[in-house]
Amino acid sequence: MGSGVKRNFRMAVEYEGTRYRGFQKQDQSDMTIQGKLEAVLSRMTEKQVEVRGSGRTDAGVHARGQIISVFLDTKMSPVEIRRYMNEYLPEDIGILRVDEVPERFHARLLAKRKTYCYRVLNSEVPSVLERKYVYQIPERLDVEAMRRAASLLCGTHDFQAFTSAKKGKKSTVRTIYSIAVEEVGREIRFTFEGDGFLYHMVRIVMGTLVQVGQGERKPEDITSIMQSGSRENAGPLLLAKGLTLMNVSY
Amino acid sequence: MGSGVKRNFRMAVEYEGTRYRGFQKQDQSDMTIQGKLEAVLSRMTEKQVEVRGSGRTDAGVHARGQIISVFLDTKMSPVEIRRYMNEYLPEDIGILRVDEVPERFHARLLAKRKTYCYRVLNSEVPSVLERKYVYQIPERLDVEAMRRAASLLCGTHDFQAFTSAKKGKKSTVRTIYSIAVEEVGREIRFTFEGDGFLYHMVRIVMGTLVQVGQGERKPEDITSIMQSGSRENAGPLLLAKGLTLMNVSY
Repeated sequence: MGSGVKRNFRMAVEYEGTRYRGFQKQDQSDMTIQGKLEAVLSRMTEKQVEVRGSGRTDAGVHARGQIISVFLDTKMSPVEIRRYMNEYLPEDIGILRVDEVPERFHARLLAKRKTYCYRVLNSEVPSVLERKYVYQIPERLDVEAMRRAASLLCGTHDFQAFTSAKKGKKSTVRTIYSIAVEEVGREIRFTFEGDGFLYHMVRIVMGTLVQVGQGERKPEDITSIMQSGSRENAGPLLLAKGLTLMNVSY
Repeated sequence: MGSGVKRNFRMAVEYEGTRYRGFQKQDQSDMTIQGKLEAVLSRMTEKQVEVRGSGRTDAGVHARGQIISVFLDTKMSPVEIRRYMNEYLPEDIGILRVDEVPERFHARLLAKRKTYCYRVLNSEVPSVLERKYVYQIPERLDVEAMRRAASLLCGTHDFQAFTSAKKGKKSTVRTIYSIAVEEVGREIRFTFEGDGFLYHMVRIVMGTLVQVGQGERKPEDITSIMQSGSRENAGPLLLAKGLTLMNVSY
């Protein structure tokens, strides 16, 4: 079927994470985004295929612009590949774009910048049509206080206190370029831009910001939590369903 | 439990129509919005309850602002009623607002103006996160031609050609105040404002507008279709899932 020569493709992927155990494949039979993508591409090329994501997303986290790279032994054009995949993928995973890229492109190793959005529905009243993409907090949050706290997180810091990953050899220093806190109707949207995020980092930062918004902590507490390097000083892990990976830049 | 005196309440209801056979109750055991609302209110008041909607929505049609009225034998406050209902309704039906209103208020008889939105995803690429609320048309549509056709539908006309209802004694004259045709990202959104809409009217109008957008008909054909008063001259009934009842005014 194929030409025997493997071409490298970059793809933008959208998914609703609700039904999945996360991006990364865990075993042969499981419900993961990577597993579903590899199954369709293996069927298409009649070869084993290995998909690389820009990074993992946790169970229940959504993506509007996850980037993957994959070597494929195929003569199909990028548009034909996109059509084939959208035909055979489940309705909660979609391919937005396929481009052929130089061999050296690697979705994870070359990722420079990621944008995540966390959506809080700050209302006692539910949002039926958006319910799978927002986390509802009925009590009115102090947006200005959360904004001040968020600004203290920006810059290059050791985020050890804001990850569920055990302390190891890998660096826990990351740079957050910006955290925008915007009120959109009944929602408060938190948009994080950074060079990368540690395991659970956005959701633990969100749990801490919400405590600030509830008046349980002061904005300035962020600095001492960060300096302590200790997970138990930060806030709780917020629900996955409010989080969406928006974009990855290279 | 109740006071014996029935108070009249007006409620704004949001729902995702996907799972339902429409707004109107059809039998005891069925899946309708009215049926679900009445079941929860009957449980709350321990009385039989009759919910009146501003109008029916078809199976699969959504609502962001359906209005209902209902007499209840209860001492609960509007806020307590809203909380109770949101606690016991399924997650695809939500109560946005409850107000106590004078006895003469009737959600259907006094409705003055309705706003519907039909969302077309005009792209070959699917939209995963919005997939339940948009109808996808891959071929590029001519937005200007659809806009001209839409303008010919505005005003007071006999819309007999644009309804699935059999010709009967009831008037099929309606007034459409405006049809806005807007491009929002990859979507084309059609917003209809009128004093009321006949059975299937918005979806048949949409089927006709899409034929214009595909170049199968000229915008001016709208006038002769309307004058013919004959359903077979209009376009097909477009899918329910693209349609949302946005608002009802009194």
